Amino acid sequence: MSGNAIGVLFRVVTWGESHGPAIGAIIDGCPPRLALAETDIQQELDRRSPGKLPSASPRKEQDRVEILSGVFEGKTTGTPISLLIRNRDADGAAYDGLRDLFRPGHGDITYQAKYGIRDHRGGGRASGRETAGRVAGGAVARKVIGQAGITVSARTLELGGIAARNLSPAAAVTSPLRCPDPEAEARMLQRLQEARIAGDTLGGIVEIVVRGCPPGLGEPVFSKIDADLAGALMGIGTVKGVEIGAGFAASKMTGSACNDPIGPEGFRTNHAGGILAGITNGSEIVVRAACKPIPSIARPQETIDLQGRPAVVTIGGRHDVSVIPRIIPVCEAMVCIVLADHLLRQRAIDR
Amino acid sequence: MSGNAIGVLFRVVTWGESHGPAIGAIIDGCPPRLALAETDIQQELDRRSPGKLPSASPRKEQDRVEILSGVFEGKTTGTPISLLIRNRDADGAAYDGLRDLFRPGHGDITYQAKYGIRDHRGGGRASGRETAGRVAGGAVARKVIGQAGITVSARTLELGGIAARNLSPAAAVTSPLRCPDPEAEARMLQRLQEARIAGDTLGGIVEIVVRGCPPGLGEPVFSKIDADLAGALMGIGTVKGVEIGAGFAASKMTGSACNDPIGPEGFRTNHAGGILAGITNGSEIVVRAACKPIPSIARPQETIDLQGRPAVVTIGGRHDVSVIPRIIPVCEAMVCIVLADHLLRQRAIDR
Amino acid sequence: MSGNAIGVLFRVVTWGESHGPAIGAIIDGCPPRLALAETDIQQELDRRSPGKLPSASPRKEQDRVEILSGVFEGKTTGTPISLLIRNRDADGAAYDGLRDLFRPGHGDITYQAKYGIRDHRGGGRASGRETAGRVAGGAVARKVIGQAGITVSARTLELGGIAARNLSPAAAVTSPLRCPDPEAEARMLQRLQEARIAGDTLGGIVEIVVRGCPPGLGEPVFSKIDADLAGALMGIGTVKGVEIGAGFAASKMTGSACNDPIGPEGFRTNHAGGILAGITNGSEIVVRAACKPIPSIARPQETIDLQGRPAVVTIGGRHDVSVIPRIIPVCEAMVCIVLADHLLRQRAIDR
Amino acid sequence: MSGNAIGVLFRVVTWGESHGPAIGAIIDGCPPRLALAETDIQQELDRRSPGKLPSASPRKEQDRVEILSGVFEGKTTGTPISLLIRNRDADGAAYDGLRDLFRPGHGDITYQAKYGIRDHRGGGRASGRETAGRVAGGAVARKVIGQAGITVSARTLELGGIAARNLSPAAAVTSPLRCPDPEAEARMLQRLQEARIAGDTLGGIVEIVVRGCPPGLGEPVFSKIDADLAGALMGIGTVKGVEIGAGFAASKMTGSACNDPIGPEGFRTNHAGGILAGITNGSEIVVRAACKPIPSIARPQETIDLQGRPAVVTIGGRHDVSVIPRIIPVCEAMVCIVLADHLLRQRAIDR
Repeated sequence: MSGNAIGVLFRVVTWGESHGPAIGAIIDGCPPRLALAETDIQQELDRRSPGKLPSASPRKEQDRVEILSGVFEGKTTGTPISLLIRNRDADGAAYDGLRDLFRPGHGDITYQAKYGIRDHRGGGRASGRETAGRVAGGAVARKVIGQAGITVSARTLELGGIAARNLSPAAAVTSPLRCPDPEAEARMLQRLQEARIAGDTLGGIVEIVVRGCPPGLGEPVFSKIDADLAGALMGIGTVKGVEIGAGFAASKMTGSACNDPIGPEGFRTNHAGGILAGITNGSEIVVRAACKPIPSIARPQETIDLQGRPAVVTIGGRHDVSVIPRIIPVCEAMVCIVLADHLLRQRAIDR
Repeated sequence: MSGNAIGVLFRVVTWGESHGPAIGAIIDGCPPRLALAETDIQQELDRRSPGKLPSASPRKEQDRVEILSGVFEGKTTGTPISLLIRNRDADGAAYDGLRDLFRPGHGDITYQAKYGIRDHRGGGRASGRETAGRVAGGAVARKVIGQAGITVSARTLELGGIAARNLSPAAAVTSPLRCPDPEAEARMLQRLQEARIAGDTLGGIVEIVVRGCPPGLGEPVFSKIDADLAGALMGIGTVKGVEIGAGFAASKMTGSACNDPIGPEGFRTNHAGGILAGITNGSEIVVRAACKPIPSIARPQETIDLQGRPAVVTIGGRHDVSVIPRIIPVCEAMVCIVLADHLLRQRAIDR
Repeated sequence: MSGNAIGVLFRVVTWGESHGPAIGAIIDGCPPRLALAETDIQQELDRRSPGKLPSASPRKEQDRVEILSGVFEGKTTGTPISLLIRNRDADGAAYDGLRDLFRPGHGDITYQAKYGIRDHRGGGRASGRETAGRVAGGAVARKVIGQAGITVSARTLELGGIAARNLSPAAAVTSPLRCPDPEAEARMLQRLQEARIAGDTLGGIVEIVVRGCPPGLGEPVFSKIDADLAGALMGIGTVKGVEIGAGFAASKMTGSACNDPIGPEGFRTNHAGGILAGITNGSEIVVRAACKPIPSIARPQETIDLQGRPAVVTIGGRHDVSVIPRIIPVCEAMVCIVLADHLLRQRAIDR
Repeated sequence: MSGNAIGVLFRVVTWGESHGPAIGAIIDGCPPRLALAETDIQQELDRRSPGKLPSASPRKEQDRVEILSGVFEGKTTGTPISLLIRNRDADGAAYDGLRDLFRPGHGDITYQAKYGIRDHRGGGRASGRETAGRVAGGAVARKVIGQAGITVSARTLELGGIAARNLSPAAAVTSPLRCPDPEAEARMLQRLQEARIAGDTLGGIVEIVVRGCPPGLGEPVFSKIDADLAGALMGIGTVKGVEIGAGFAASKMTGSACNDPIGPEGFRTNHAGGILAGITNGSEIVVRAACKPIPSIARPQETIDLQGRPAVVTIGGRHDVSVIPRIIPVCEAMVCIVLADHLLRQRAIDR
């Protein structure tokens, strides 16, 4: 019940610090007899890897996942799947200067307040590196929901204030920023370059779309599927806002415009984003997550030290200019995990 | 673990349908020796009551809460607090025409898909009436966090597309729409009147502010306090979007503008909305929830019946024109519950 | 997660104190479309009622259960089932003399230590009266597992040191002490009479047998079905020991004698009590619970008061001489709840 | 919520199969700033190691634990502690003959029934080897409760039907069978030797004693500390019975004999085993667990194969003759985990 696990029946626990020996995840509750190989997980991790992404730092993480349990002769056994990723290329000593300083926008100061101790190296547990464990868990979840015909894909809707307008789904899959609007993407790339030169960072908006989801997933009242999706996405460090379907725009609509008329062939519109009263309605599920700019900027910043004295912190090392598009597989992973959990929960009562 | 409970240590379960014999809540995990009377809960329920609110229907709910357990001689005992509210003024027969029709924008069709059965009267379990149980639970939570000096208050930031601009906190407490900008509120009231005449409904945006919250509340990774707040608010039927601090606007900012500089006296700005890496930082917590327009409009709507045949549904009865401001104590309740839970969780490790 | 709920998918919460306004239970996670009426629950409560049981006190509880939610037109809807039982014939003033005294063998002193406050009337939350809520929840569970062909029945194996020897299952159903051995039962009845005259009380052993349970229920490692059964039964106030199958006797056997040989038609013996490695094997599940004598004896006892001073306590009122046979439907209820929960959990992965 | 985790606030997840690459545990919810080194855990694992125990097989496991997260500069950080133990000396091929056969007394047949697949090598997940993860988790729990002055120690009360009579606590710590009665132990050793020669195995009874536990730990009704202890111990594969304090003997006592009189200096007797109404009372907690004989005997046994055809299985390899005394640190670990969890839960409300 501590904050390192998510899900009721399909449950993912992540563990590990940015500069400790390793990070990993346990998937507990995966149905048996599902084909699963390390490559299934590795390919999702590779999507999160900085590689040659225009927004990414040159640090090479080379994450290699190892399945330690729960799979026998290529199939899941129903027992916990333990995944291990050793940390490499992680020089903790580079963070010595930050041992007693709190970086603005980071969890340094709040972890210290909460625990009275913190692993200051690379943000410790609060590092974005932790999301590799989520992506690994999401890869398993994706296989579970894939068996039921459900697919999850995300794309960049906005970056640095530049919005995609002409949405071409095909473009998002292959483009460097996973942006469905090639023209907007060109400007986003330029914006990234400007920010990098200015020693600054950028945020953006990611949209996740779920296709093939059957109606009926989600629990009433407190574990609505939109509630769980919102919680799962807001639990990604960079996310400061989440909306479903028409989202914030719905607050400006009238009921007659916002309601989705129902016809024999299904819903005529999808302002609901595929969810009514917390339960899927068979339409596409559409969720958007607003990501703040990465707080690690290459400029001196005002802060305090462990003793509360004023200080200036300058963050060295090379950092990403934006979480986009690396955050995309993380968003997808969280959505996959929530869906897998609700799929199993529905099966328990669905006779 | 079903969807009718929230919280780990401070746990609220709600139960009941709109037109069943009663609704209620159980609060399990409330600390002992807390002064608690029915009036503490009743006054929160009264805030949710339609009363003479300009946006509300004339239905008189007259909710009276009864404490059935967990309180002895005016103090909590540490055992479950069971709260009962009998349903009154609830004429289920008025819904006979809706037995086989799915109202657009409502959970009728998804509950049918999920369970293969539904109590069609007034939306059954999916009715906004269920939130009375949350408000009752929130009243207890408010007392728990109040002992730690934490206060929670919400206000109307936008209604029907009209935004409050000049925020006067004092105004929000007493004004009919809980709006901090009297000039905007006048226009909101007019807008409500127009919508009522047009047989339509309106949405809006609520902002919840938490003051006095100590740093250190929230769990890492999956039960971050912002994740739990987002899940709790998105779990309110009307909410389609949630944002913390700068929220969606943060996605358009640069890191140098978005980071909150830290000084010896605290944070210089509060774009983080009081939460860093999922843990409170001692600043005000600021959360906004986007509410869709109420789906029960007084106009004929296209739909299907239980057999999938096209139909037109006209919703009779008198309904609210907007969830605002009645949703305000519900939003506050959810925030109080999340905070009470995290306060207790922090105490468990805080020695 | 507080101690007033049990189950993951089929979840029962009980609430209420012995001499408060009411007690009750919520069943969350019951599958939809199950026929359920108040009489289904009432008949189980009646089995727990003292009535004319030879071991019971003359207090007439007249428990009447009311279904407040979760059932529509005679069928469960999948939403929480709230059950209410008003307390009657409960004169709290009779306990005034016990306000500052701790009764030996009761939870008075531990509740005071834990919470710093307690409802002293009739033991408050720790009263055996709380088990009415369990029996009510168990009645719903019994219907859930009954649909899968599973039956649960318990009987008295021992009372006051007198053991049933010739086990006639039919006798147990109708006999006053639910004892399968009429000859032993006659001696038990005499023993009860002697104890009543002596102002003393007796314990005994209950055996619960589950028939028709399919193989495959139970989770590995920490939520084994035997672990959950043991926890559920040991959670009954009176129970001080639990054993499965051969139980304590297994500790004296050799492996060659204890192992149950397997043949094409099934297991040749059942020392395992129907459970192997925490998972049902298709044989009858056999569990025994050892009940201590009721601590409320009609004799003066040494104790201390709230200030720690020596005192003598004499418990007035009329009390049962033994929890047997009233505990039998409680034991059955706990077993039904555990089985219903595991049945649903298995369905989630069983495709 | 799957069956591989235990605890609410102090939570232990174990993972791993007997002959997979590794086994391990995650401890989530450990308080921060606790001194913790690999040696703390290793020494508990060594107690479980067969070493030169008279009841053990010659297989050398050489378990070496590695801390992968949650500890920084020798202290816990409050984040999940991931522990890894690589499997060595594990020749899976030796089990090829058992791929399609179900060993009597083992979980082979029930895992197959539950999951439709199983890792047959060494029992897979159902192997006693999994308990190494528990012992590792228990080592951390022991440090948590140790800070509060609580100690947990277990001893052999009976083996192969031979009971210890003259209990000398000091003897149990150092003796080969952890038996407090040297004379009985000599006979137990002889009994073990006889069983080994006969190709048979033995069971026994372990008693766990908790000292220094403050009153007030345990939750009412369903998460009573005795319920949680019983569930935790019954969840050890070998355990078929659990009793607290007087246990099964209490069922033969009268109330006047069983009640523990209370004096200013504490309880005069301890038939309750330190627990009243599910909450600790400050006395020693006394729990006993009945262990069945190990099912792997060196004799041919009747069984069936995967197709349900009659077969004879002969288990090769070298196996322990009794789980005693290797089960002792496992029993202690489970008790430590339950106590650590309840200690933290109590802190949450104990102001």
